[in-house]
Amino acid sequence: MATFAMQSLGCEVAALNTVHFSNHTGYKQVKGTKATAQEIRDLYQGLQQSYLTDFDILLSGYAPSAAAVEAVGEIGLDLQRKAEKKPGSFFWILDPVMGDQGRIYVNEDVVPAYKKIIHHADLILPNQFEAELLSGIKITSLHTLAEAITAIHKTYSVPHIIVTSVQLTTLDHSASTTAPPSTLTIIGSTTKSDGTPRLFRVDVPALDCFFSGTGDMFAALTVARLREAVFSADPALRHTKSWVSPDSVPATELPLAKATVKVLASMHSVLENTMKARDEELRNSAAGADEEPIEVNEEARQKREHLRRTKAAEVRLVRNVKFLRDPVAKFEVQAWSE
Amino acid sequence: MATFAMQSLGCEVAALNTVHFSNHTGYKQVKGTKATAQEIRDLYQGLQQSYLTDFDILLSGYAPSAAAVEAVGEIGLDLQRKAEKKPGSFFWILDPVMGDQGRIYVNEDVVPAYKKIIHHADLILPNQFEAELLSGIKITSLHTLAEAITAIHKTYSVPHIIVTSVQLTTLDHSASTTAPPSTLTIIGSTTKSDGTPRLFRVDVPALDCFFSGTGDMFAALTVARLREAVFSADPALRHTKSWVSPDSVPATELPLAKATVKVLASMHSVLENTMKARDEELRNSAAGADEEPIEVNEEARQKREHLRRTKAAEVRLVRNVKFLRDPVAKFEVQAWSE
Repeated sequence: MATFAMQSLGCEVAALNTVHFSNHTGYKQVKGTKATAQEIRDLYQGLQQSYLTDFDILLSGYAPSAAAVEAVGEIGLDLQRKAEKKPGSFFWILDPVMGDQGRIYVNEDVVPAYKKIIHHADLILPNQFEAELLSGIKITSLHTLAEAITAIHKTYSVPHIIVTSVQLTTLDHSASTTAPPSTLTIIGSTTKSDGTPRLFRVDVPALDCFFSGTGDMFAALTVARLREAVFSADPALRHTKSWVSPDSVPATELPLAKATVKVLASMHSVLENTMKARDEELRNSAAGADEEPIEVNEEARQKREHLRRTKAAEVRLVRNVKFLRDPVAKFEVQAWSE
Repeated sequence: MATFAMQSLGCEVAALNTVHFSNHTGYKQVKGTKATAQEIRDLYQGLQQSYLTDFDILLSGYAPSAAAVEAVGEIGLDLQRKAEKKPGSFFWILDPVMGDQGRIYVNEDVVPAYKKIIHHADLILPNQFEAELLSGIKITSLHTLAEAITAIHKTYSVPHIIVTSVQLTTLDHSASTTAPPSTLTIIGSTTKSDGTPRLFRVDVPALDCFFSGTGDMFAALTVARLREAVFSADPALRHTKSWVSPDSVPATELPLAKATVKVLASMHSVLENTMKARDEELRNSAAGADEEPIEVNEEARQKREHLRRTKAAEVRLVRNVKFLRDPVAKFEVQAWSE
């Protein structure tokens, strides 16, 4: 998902796979292998020994153990060290994959491992639950959400944050007047020089379907769109450490805000078309169901139905690639102060 | 290389990586892991248990051991078995990666392992040396090349063959009158119902540079273009086992011939642009060479130079993707009878 999304926006990608699975975990059963920390280190050393580490951007995502998170951290640090003399020549986007919806789905020691490396990242992309884990603040309102972002900026000195898929309606009753229940809100922020956040929000219509891999799609598209926005801003910005815009740039004019709007527009079209294709596939497979043996056992029937629905909801990325390159949906970015 | 090439032509790809290396082997040093036969089997079982094996096409390439070749063979056979009742609904393209330029670069037991599975494949893509290994015929002339292809059709009952990058000029002096020395010839054939070949050839200008991964690019583009050519032919063809055209279709009108012309056109533009980019990169890195420590040791200096030249020649696929989708070069296919 991430590799193809970046490639279709023109990035040459060296993919270091931290797992090699038969399918995504939404199927609730999977076979395959996880990379050990040593394997991750070896691959990076392979790149080093042949002088192949001249990367502009590192996107790090799911790592299958605390040791693997550490190994990825070492890679990020090494790339940063090499770029020290050329501020802005390297940028690290870190997706701290730890859990969702109140549940940690990695080993518990992965959380402290992330806490150790995050202060080296330039942009992190936690979901609401991961933002809680990192900030130590329970997000129950718009106020506590802003507090959590402020705390993450401060605690980890991370200059850019995007909190993906916040359901404001469940957070704060007052929000429901501006955002209908079927709306997802994405909140982002780039710090000012005093460390305070510049908050922006983008509301997008929520789709009534669970898709796997949307976090990776978001991260991958953000890689390409953020770089593009920085390169079309004041030329000084691309030579500024961590691409932090001067304080005079308002939240809605931040490259991060501009990138987010484009990323969400691409994703909305891809997912809308995926949902249409899913519905059609489910209709067709129901019609052709007599080709399959009927499961007599209720548990087996339910499992088969879950697999069928999960496959039908696989994101149709390749056939909708035009929406990655040329987003058509139009979303608005608003400055946000709680 | 193969995954992105197929994806950019609209294929949804499930990539089962048989190796996970830091770089291609042209660098002459590499770190990473090879999949065991068991790992390959496990991944496929993972797909099976979640009903994810409804593939139209299998492209199999490099496998790191004889046991891995066997495991890939089992996958091909299983997919074929599932499609038995619907002729033409599954097609297996097999690239028998064993060696090049007179040298076997896999374990010796990989050769007999390939010989066992090739008779199940629909299309194989040997280079000149691999065609010799499979046919047991030393290719020293146009005559022996035709003999080798005829023998492969017959021995393995493979309906389609493309022999990639034949240097006819080194094979047969008489050929040099039609093909200048800087020409590569690609020879293909689809059998007639009596098992005899229908031979065609395409001559393309050779580029003076060694590129890694062109075999994978050729195979991947052939997947998409062959399917496209079959689907725009007589509708009966796509329901015919192995997509073998009726005897009335001449060599130059074969879907395989039409696909080959498009594939070579795409590749020529990608590689021509890669060569330009390489030359520029080599000029720039020579100019900026003072940034690097000077190797005092001659051996170290030569190694560093090899790595620099190999990196500079990395195929620029992502930025030339438009040539994959819309080939501009025009090559001609000729019927060929030696």
